[in-house]
Amino acid sequence: MKKIYLDNAATTKASDRVITEMINSMKNDFANANSIHDFGNSVSKKIKEKKKIFEKILKVPSEDVYFTAGGTDSNNILIKGIAKAHKNGRIITTKIEHPSILETTKSLEEEYEVIYLDVNEYGEVLESSLVEAMTDDTILVSISYVNSELGIIQDIKKLSETVKRINKNTIFHTDFVQGLSHIDVDFSKLNVDAISMSSHKIHGPKGIGALYLKKNTKFKNMVYGKSNDNILVPRTLANELIIGFLEAMEEIDYANIKKVEKLKEYTLEKLKDIKDIRINSKENASPYILNIAFKNARGEAILNYLSSFDIYISTGSACSSRIKVSNVISAINLSKEYIDGVIRISFSKYNEKEEIDYFIEKLKEVLEMMV
Amino acid sequence: MKKIYLDNAATTKASDRVITEMINSMKNDFANANSIHDFGNSVSKKIKEKKKIFEKILKVPSEDVYFTAGGTDSNNILIKGIAKAHKNGRIITTKIEHPSILETTKSLEEEYEVIYLDVNEYGEVLESSLVEAMTDDTILVSISYVNSELGIIQDIKKLSETVKRINKNTIFHTDFVQGLSHIDVDFSKLNVDAISMSSHKIHGPKGIGALYLKKNTKFKNMVYGKSNDNILVPRTLANELIIGFLEAMEEIDYANIKKVEKLKEYTLEKLKDIKDIRINSKENASPYILNIAFKNARGEAILNYLSSFDIYISTGSACSSRIKVSNVISAINLSKEYIDGVIRISFSKYNEKEEIDYFIEKLKEVLEMMV
Repeated sequence: MKKIYLDNAATTKASDRVITEMINSMKNDFANANSIHDFGNSVSKKIKEKKKIFEKILKVPSEDVYFTAGGTDSNNILIKGIAKAHKNGRIITTKIEHPSILETTKSLEEEYEVIYLDVNEYGEVLESSLVEAMTDDTILVSISYVNSELGIIQDIKKLSETVKRINKNTIFHTDFVQGLSHIDVDFSKLNVDAISMSSHKIHGPKGIGALYLKKNTKFKNMVYGKSNDNILVPRTLANELIIGFLEAMEEIDYANIKKVEKLKEYTLEKLKDIKDIRINSKENASPYILNIAFKNARGEAILNYLSSFDIYISTGSACSSRIKVSNVISAINLSKEYIDGVIRISFSKYNEKEEIDYFIEKLKEVLEMMV
Repeated sequence: MKKIYLDNAATTKASDRVITEMINSMKNDFANANSIHDFGNSVSKKIKEKKKIFEKILKVPSEDVYFTAGGTDSNNILIKGIAKAHKNGRIITTKIEHPSILETTKSLEEEYEVIYLDVNEYGEVLESSLVEAMTDDTILVSISYVNSELGIIQDIKKLSETVKRINKNTIFHTDFVQGLSHIDVDFSKLNVDAISMSSHKIHGPKGIGALYLKKNTKFKNMVYGKSNDNILVPRTLANELIIGFLEAMEEIDYANIKKVEKLKEYTLEKLKDIKDIRINSKENASPYILNIAFKNARGEAILNYLSSFDIYISTGSACSSRIKVSNVISAINLSKEYIDGVIRISFSKYNEKEEIDYFIEKLKEVLEMMV
């Protein structure tokens, strides 16, 4: 039976174009980009050329973008690198970040003062709480652009301006893993110094991501090795992964946002006749993520029932899916009757209305069984 | 024209079987292994099953093997993780390690005492110098099994026994990146606590490697995130890379060592009538690596000339190929007339005698031009 995959915030299927380019790279361009012979040089040149896509999509200089092993790797390297470049100081983040942020800042709590900002019922960071937390010795503020569980889009333009207005030396980082390809952001107009990205959330290969770091940002290298082309993360360049990731970047078409938006609206419309439901995702959240909760239901039972019909959703973030209540759900103070009944539906450009119809049909079945 | 690729210690071409398995994984098994639905579970199970190949090849429990982003990542994580688990102490390594070891230990010199062992003219670590360096507070000894530039194979059995005899608490790590698939080692019989491996040196994909860490070894996690199956390196599992890497492991056939050995002997025979040549690789070195030097010649000029005929070799380690004299060549005290004329030829199971013939022909041409 055809799989109905509605767990695209956990990972996506690589596109056919991505796979084709990866095969081509593995068969023909497998040399080490660090090698100084023509074969190595040609690989290095191809990557440099294709890498310019970051200038088109993010409006940042492509030479300030470094390849990493993925979003978690980008977040780890960035936070540790900024912290260690400063001997001490305050780090501000939020209670709803990804574990790769929260576990990293937690590991730094002995040497640095870490503040975890509260969010409102939709997961929004309020400017006022950020202003309150900012100090002269704040070295880093890290706030994700789009939350992976709720889809909430933070006002990063305003928040980064606020930070720089209060302390121009504070470095502003945003985890853009759920934003890339899903919202059109011109970073040249924002006060953002560092951006984390992941390939496998945008139909690229797994195991590869990127980190943008503005020139002259105070930073201590965290990865030790040798690379001529990727000095911040000096590992052997993974040609096929880089080519695949950049191909997925080239496939970004913001017209898809509209398509997914319609799909989300269609889903919401179909959910309307279910009673005792709470839509946790704010109306203007990312169209790719829809977080909902059912009164006195169990998200995991819903997931398992749907799964038996090859319909795949999530109960929270896949990255912490076996944890009882996620830090994000805790942070939005969901009322007790709803807290166990949370599910996340996350769309891609490949989903179709018929899939939603079948999903809703089976969802209603399992909800009725739970009454 | 057909490429003659003799730079296999820098990286190898992925095998057709590896590519096929990767495509299959990307098309059919793309779910996040952390997801708790059936699709995610099936991926997780497949990886766990296929991962048992480590038990066959290395004779270590597969559950103690963790996936990393490659050899550099494995080395970084291991050295920092062992160091940080101990507050201070001595770390012993050698002068001929890969930059991912040497740059990492260098970064630790403020907090730890790091000893860099000398080697003899073939790059061999002498047991006596290791004995001399060992102390009660030695927390870690890290010695690569096979050196990437010279191919020298260290007597890791003896060296690790010596370490444990002097101090049973000292952790013994070996960088096995150039050893995997090239020498048959039964690690269950060795006193080795940690092993670094890389996929792209054995015809697997780039961007993936592994780290074996013996159960109950004193270690502090260095990567922060969430993963149910890869707790030491909690990033989203890169399904296609893991499957590709494990497929390359399954393709390991030690009969190929004999084939490559013959090819190396053939090459050495053909090199015999070149005068003023020094074979830097010891006779019993890895058959996959042949390091030679020509008197008053320039390795880079040789490389460039060969490269113009689509023959690819290296002047040193590709990972530091733009550095004038590599740390390895410095360590073996090559005489002055030979030091600029070093080249490394590195073979794979795919190389054939006819390629060697053409390589030797062109090598002689360029050497004559240099006279």
